[in-house]
Amino acid sequence: MIQPSYGRLRGLVAAAFTPFHADGAIDNARVSPMVDDLIEQQIHGLYILGSTGEGISLTSQERQIIAEAFVTAAAGRIPVIVQVGSESLFAAKELARHAQQIGADAVSAVSPVYFKPDSVETLVDSMAQIAAGAPDLPFYYYHIPAATGLTLSPLAFLQRAIERIPNLRGIKFTSLSVQDYQACLELAGDDYEVMWGLDETLLSGLTAGGTAAVGSTYNFAPAVYHNIFRAFDVGNLEEARLWQSRSQQLVRTFVPFGPRAAQKAIMAMIGQDCGPSRLPIRSLTSEAFTQLRHELEEIGFFHWARSSDESVAANSASA
Amino acid sequence: MIQPSYGRLRGLVAAAFTPFHADGAIDNARVSPMVDDLIEQQIHGLYILGSTGEGISLTSQERQIIAEAFVTAAAGRIPVIVQVGSESLFAAKELARHAQQIGADAVSAVSPVYFKPDSVETLVDSMAQIAAGAPDLPFYYYHIPAATGLTLSPLAFLQRAIERIPNLRGIKFTSLSVQDYQACLELAGDDYEVMWGLDETLLSGLTAGGTAAVGSTYNFAPAVYHNIFRAFDVGNLEEARLWQSRSQQLVRTFVPFGPRAAQKAIMAMIGQDCGPSRLPIRSLTSEAFTQLRHELEEIGFFHWARSSDESVAANSASA
Amino acid sequence: MIQPSYGRLRGLVAAAFTPFHADGAIDNARVSPMVDDLIEQQIHGLYILGSTGEGISLTSQERQIIAEAFVTAAAGRIPVIVQVGSESLFAAKELARHAQQIGADAVSAVSPVYFKPDSVETLVDSMAQIAAGAPDLPFYYYHIPAATGLTLSPLAFLQRAIERIPNLRGIKFTSLSVQDYQACLELAGDDYEVMWGLDETLLSGLTAGGTAAVGSTYNFAPAVYHNIFRAFDVGNLEEARLWQSRSQQLVRTFVPFGPRAAQKAIMAMIGQDCGPSRLPIRSLTSEAFTQLRHELEEIGFFHWARSSDESVAANSASA
Amino acid sequence: MIQPSYGRLRGLVAAAFTPFHADGAIDNARVSPMVDDLIEQQIHGLYILGSTGEGISLTSQERQIIAEAFVTAAAGRIPVIVQVGSESLFAAKELARHAQQIGADAVSAVSPVYFKPDSVETLVDSMAQIAAGAPDLPFYYYHIPAATGLTLSPLAFLQRAIERIPNLRGIKFTSLSVQDYQACLELAGDDYEVMWGLDETLLSGLTAGGTAAVGSTYNFAPAVYHNIFRAFDVGNLEEARLWQSRSQQLVRTFVPFGPRAAQKAIMAMIGQDCGPSRLPIRSLTSEAFTQLRHELEEIGFFHWARSSDESVAANSASA
Repeated sequence: MIQPSYGRLRGLVAAAFTPFHADGAIDNARVSPMVDDLIEQQIHGLYILGSTGEGISLTSQERQIIAEAFVTAAAGRIPVIVQVGSESLFAAKELARHAQQIGADAVSAVSPVYFKPDSVETLVDSMAQIAAGAPDLPFYYYHIPAATGLTLSPLAFLQRAIERIPNLRGIKFTSLSVQDYQACLELAGDDYEVMWGLDETLLSGLTAGGTAAVGSTYNFAPAVYHNIFRAFDVGNLEEARLWQSRSQQLVRTFVPFGPRAAQKAIMAMIGQDCGPSRLPIRSLTSEAFTQLRHELEEIGFFHWARSSDESVAANSASA
Repeated sequence: MIQPSYGRLRGLVAAAFTPFHADGAIDNARVSPMVDDLIEQQIHGLYILGSTGEGISLTSQERQIIAEAFVTAAAGRIPVIVQVGSESLFAAKELARHAQQIGADAVSAVSPVYFKPDSVETLVDSMAQIAAGAPDLPFYYYHIPAATGLTLSPLAFLQRAIERIPNLRGIKFTSLSVQDYQACLELAGDDYEVMWGLDETLLSGLTAGGTAAVGSTYNFAPAVYHNIFRAFDVGNLEEARLWQSRSQQLVRTFVPFGPRAAQKAIMAMIGQDCGPSRLPIRSLTSEAFTQLRHELEEIGFFHWARSSDESVAANSASA
Repeated sequence: MIQPSYGRLRGLVAAAFTPFHADGAIDNARVSPMVDDLIEQQIHGLYILGSTGEGISLTSQERQIIAEAFVTAAAGRIPVIVQVGSESLFAAKELARHAQQIGADAVSAVSPVYFKPDSVETLVDSMAQIAAGAPDLPFYYYHIPAATGLTLSPLAFLQRAIERIPNLRGIKFTSLSVQDYQACLELAGDDYEVMWGLDETLLSGLTAGGTAAVGSTYNFAPAVYHNIFRAFDVGNLEEARLWQSRSQQLVRTFVPFGPRAAQKAIMAMIGQDCGPSRLPIRSLTSEAFTQLRHELEEIGFFHWARSSDESVAANSASA
Repeated sequence: MIQPSYGRLRGLVAAAFTPFHADGAIDNARVSPMVDDLIEQQIHGLYILGSTGEGISLTSQERQIIAEAFVTAAAGRIPVIVQVGSESLFAAKELARHAQQIGADAVSAVSPVYFKPDSVETLVDSMAQIAAGAPDLPFYYYHIPAATGLTLSPLAFLQRAIERIPNLRGIKFTSLSVQDYQACLELAGDDYEVMWGLDETLLSGLTAGGTAAVGSTYNFAPAVYHNIFRAFDVGNLEEARLWQSRSQQLVRTFVPFGPRAAQKAIMAMIGQDCGPSRLPIRSLTSEAFTQLRHELEEIGFFHWARSSDESVAANSASA
């Protein structure tokens, strides 16, 4: 098994956004301040060019430029996992090779979705082809059935992939099935990682035994999730649940605006503007932007999302 | 709000099976011993004629006979909730009226599925029509999107139903969405109940704040879930997770045999034979029955599923 | 094989509406004038209590009352096929038995949908159970995957059901798959019937070899479809296509109002008021009713839908 | 409106395969003989790098190499339409630009599927972005809901796209909905093209008014479809239906082997070996290959698929 340079991942991994100019061109100059802010907010790792990062909406060349920008900006302070999944496994393998060349810490890949693998075996063989592009880096399969439409069992994947993919490191697990998650964790034991991918039910993931989580809202509401981790670690489930409730309130607030574009809008609201989304994701109109900000103000988002120490104190006092 | 005769439900509610003769005819003589066994196993309530009870596969007359058999057998020792959902809201309302007449403790209903309600408003109006048949009994909406295909928000249902259905008591919540569950619980507060409906992730439900759960495997593996409740109550999540893992192993074992028919087979294996399933559910062949028993033996099911005190002791020793 | 009393079905079979009073109670007094009108409009058969007839929304008793009303009203002038499908195969079998007793001409059944048959074999066995209730009547399986969610092959069904169901007569085929339809027709040959069930593509069904069709819009726009048949019979595809286009325009006009409730509204507009729909189908508001009538006027519906001879003449003149 | 260099398309457009070496590398040397054979078989156009051509499984560079090979091989004898759809609209636009540079006759694009457009407006804007890359070439939107999961109305797309995309030429329509097809054809009139995309129901497309069709089986069974066109043109629907039946028999035979890989296997069987498929499409094992050939022999495929004149004669004799 590959020994990752960064040791075992614990805590919050931000599924980072890709900054764009107003015309949709990539804006890699904004990567560095965004990474600095995330590190300041105690984020433990970066998962780049995934669903949040719109990786699949970029050209291969753009993906390489953005990957370099993140690796350079992180500068070894926190690990960078590069999502390289593509409809073309050949393109994905090239991106994996590039990630290894530039010193990324790990690669990850989602399944092709236009042509869906017809069996677990085909899925594993497909992922093996990508992982072989970066043989010296740990590889994470990205399981996200709501986006891919793949119903193949992640447990069956893991069982077979352990035998078949030498540099397999684990799974980024973005599915509602807590039972599948727990089963994967049990099979993984101390040798593999299964990272929880649903922010609004992080507490379910921790309760099932998870220790690391990847998510998009960790970019702009890290305090909420740090508080969940802390409360959970000291056995205060009531407190953890309260913070999870805020996370859910946050998600319920922005989802009606279009979940992906709305989150980029929130980044701008907290001073980390990373531009619009790219089509086929439609960005918010300015009216929608104003309305979303108003609704976030109403739920107190700007008070409790980021200044973790204060808000913990405030909350403890009011609880 | 209706004050239920049985007070607040806490703990395990068994989604009871309906006993059939070999030819598929209802076999109400077997109801009483089954209920006695469940009470002996510390089950806190019965949810009858739901998915597990194949209620929808019975004629209206048969449903009434079975409902009476359960109410008589329970004899006030534990509450009986009668599922009356039907493609015909008129038929469902009649069944609700009958349930009230025979002294059931509550009624519950799933949405029609052939014609799906086109909005939350239509769903609420449909449920209101049923609930009006038993105005003196608490009413639970049965939310089970995997079976109904309904994607309407249970939170939006609850918000509107609280205003619209005088005898609303809550929701039987059988969905993977823990965030929806927690949101419903928060809205419910002390006034309404939201019962967790997924056995293999009971721990997620408890962590989200749930206190009552309805499930089919509680019929034949109650010790597993009592142990989850106990461990959770004393803050021993590791122990709770271990028992949840057994529950998941159990489910993974029988599901490939056809989840509903396999569970009736397990009832026979533990000495509570309640006959075959009815078409369109196909019962296990005798070969499959033998194979399932073998696989259950291999995972130790017959040792840890029911004698709760011993198995807790055994487990604690080996842990 | 059963020899149906009515011989081979050819032409248009109306999927009849079930009349309701304003409060949703069945209104069987309106059945007779509706049937007279349909016969006057040259309809060749009646398919009652199906999706259009909201059969599944009625109680078993109500279904029997309505079935009797239709059989009495038809009085042997045109055949009456009674749809008896139910979530409960036992209830469906009872309804089949009743249909035979009252002198219906055939029975038909849709699959249960809450519990979906897990294989073609289970589906055939389920239908066999129903068909056995009316052994002297021809039996039609009702294939409508968009409503049932069943993806089992109708061709595989037919192959097996021919061996297994002595009184099988054929399939009411309501699916977009013209290739499945043609395959079923070829297997059916002269011994079985496969009735086309999609009004807006009747021409596809005829081109594939079909000779009989069941549909809801035949109730209020029979001229359109008579013209399609006539034009097709004389090899005038251009004319047939023109009338099919009107049918499609009609469907596109009413579907946004809720397809089932809107069609009942249209019945009222043409002087055959059969009341509202039952929940879970929501009836049109009076504003929506007015708006729909206006849109139907705009497409000329009231000129070309029913007075077939005139409109054919008018159309031929303008063509 | 763009005036396409090739005039109006009529007849059969082959959705061409992309030849691969045994290791999956592109094998552009095999393009030229394949194109010659297709022209000899009276194919009227080529649609390359679509679903059949596995375009989305290639890297951008590979797509450009293959596109050039086809344009060179066709040498102006028949038009070449290049499918450039990609998860990345930026990548798709670059491919469109390249297609124009190399002298392709038209471009076409499927929607992104990982991020699905949320509205017709977003879909049109996305396609407009691609079409702008090849402003001098006709552009076809590729509508294939079974692959994309997009349920947006193609008619609504066409209505809006006519206003928004200056070089719009039409739609490659691969959907079961004949009513949508006819509606699009009517809107298209003489100004736009809507090409039928389902081989096994070509006759439905023609009856609805279509005049051009794109398909994969036209590569290896052109005689079948030429016969459908010929029979349809002289009003012999019975003959057309008979050939359509063969087409359906062919499709039913190979689909169980994996539809895409099986068709590449058939290409090898008819002497136009274009290598294996690429993962995530799994190629046939040699056992499956032998079995498929055997089944194709049994239905007479090798007798009636290609030598059109003889088989028409043979068929007429036996009819």
